[in-house]
Amino acid sequence: MKKPLILVTNDDGINAAGIRNLAEIMSEMGEVVVVAPDQPRSGQGHAITIETPIKYQKLNSNPGYPVYTCNGTPVDSVKIAKNRILPRHPDLLVSGINHGSNSSINIIYSATVAAVLEGAMAGIPSIGFSLLDYSPFANFDHARPFVKKVAAKVLEEGLPEGTAINVNFPPPKDKPYKGLKVCRQAKGQWEEDFEVRTDPRKSEYFWLKGIFNNMDAAATDTDEHALKNNYVSLVPIQFDFTAHHMINELKSWENDT
Amino acid sequence: MKKPLILVTNDDGINAAGIRNLAEIMSEMGEVVVVAPDQPRSGQGHAITIETPIKYQKLNSNPGYPVYTCNGTPVDSVKIAKNRILPRHPDLLVSGINHGSNSSINIIYSATVAAVLEGAMAGIPSIGFSLLDYSPFANFDHARPFVKKVAAKVLEEGLPEGTAINVNFPPPKDKPYKGLKVCRQAKGQWEEDFEVRTDPRKSEYFWLKGIFNNMDAAATDTDEHALKNNYVSLVPIQFDFTAHHMINELKSWENDT
Repeated sequence: MKKPLILVTNDDGINAAGIRNLAEIMSEMGEVVVVAPDQPRSGQGHAITIETPIKYQKLNSNPGYPVYTCNGTPVDSVKIAKNRILPRHPDLLVSGINHGSNSSINIIYSATVAAVLEGAMAGIPSIGFSLLDYSPFANFDHARPFVKKVAAKVLEEGLPEGTAINVNFPPPKDKPYKGLKVCRQAKGQWEEDFEVRTDPRKSEYFWLKGIFNNMDAAATDTDEHALKNNYVSLVPIQFDFTAHHMINELKSWENDT
Repeated sequence: MKKPLILVTNDDGINAAGIRNLAEIMSEMGEVVVVAPDQPRSGQGHAITIETPIKYQKLNSNPGYPVYTCNGTPVDSVKIAKNRILPRHPDLLVSGINHGSNSSINIIYSATVAAVLEGAMAGIPSIGFSLLDYSPFANFDHARPFVKKVAAKVLEEGLPEGTAINVNFPPPKDKPYKGLKVCRQAKGQWEEDFEVRTDPRKSEYFWLKGIFNNMDAAATDTDEHALKNNYVSLVPIQFDFTAHHMINELKSWENDT
């Protein structure tokens, strides 16, 4: 049987430990091609590069699989991989392992998850992986067996059209994770705050920062709850933004306007 | 009664005709504050600026309402408006009028719509408006009465928690639009293609382009169908990405992994 073709990308950029770990694990499961941004592109959401041109190159490295970088976003990287690099339609796309959480509402800002949705839009079974540790030296040891098992499941069973998978890992501790929980995205909100500074020319500038509020703290079926209890969270996601439950309710507006 | 406070933003940047039209219409309905990117930021999705600092300034213009620009994305503009500029929680956020379509899957790349979702996340009733005409000289005349009516409806009735509204206008023709249709987002896909060029130093670069495919062409309940038939499309949208229908199906994975 032919080995599955696996596209690996991320948003922390090609030099992050997370993508090295992910590509290593995937190379035990199939034929890996890495295509990732040449620099960190966290918080870029589903951005694409349209005002400037895109370049990409194959790195002169030899980890046992080809590695390409691109000057665009994670979503651009998926588009370039599909159209210019991969020899055929891939069997799997994995994105990450992100250094930092993509649970709850973080998903909407996440370019790690955007790459996953872009893969799903192209009909590729796609999974995002994120570890709740921002450190560039984060330890992925407890996460590795779960990455492998979830990827094997998706390779085996596929995913329904229009859907993908978002996996988050609790911060690494001494003890391993308790298991996997299938969850929904918790309701949450960033209470942002801008740190004001003054540049040498006396002009004010602002750094975006904030505090995350879990607005679903009482619920037990959310990703936030699973992660807090040392479970790996798995949220099935989709790219249909329609609030279907509102359509009938709004139908009366057709006459009023 | 106090006039409603209306935040106006866009992704085509402060100099676009679309935002001037939108701010003008809104100034007939309430107290307007414009906060928008200082340059075009189309296709930026839900990107936020975290690797570089943000600056904003009040313009020395006098259209009858204050106008601020920001060097960040549309989502940054909403965050800056909320935290640094607006005197109180706004009653309405409107984004656009975009020069170009945000129907079907375009919504996921759209920073016009991302600003709307960011507003909804902050509890502000929020509406995005887009015209299916990319021209900087597009004619918004047929759109204007619908903008006003939909905004009035939202100001009057509010929107359910976690939801917002995405409105698209057909390309302007001689005859006015037939009316408003409440729809779902059509299934669609960009079949992208990269145009290859060679720079003066003999290095290849690529421009992202593509063709949109409506994969829901037989359906009559979609935004694409409404727009094709000269109706204004209104799609209720949400920022919960969870594919709720898959949760039960995936529960068995909890034991298998």
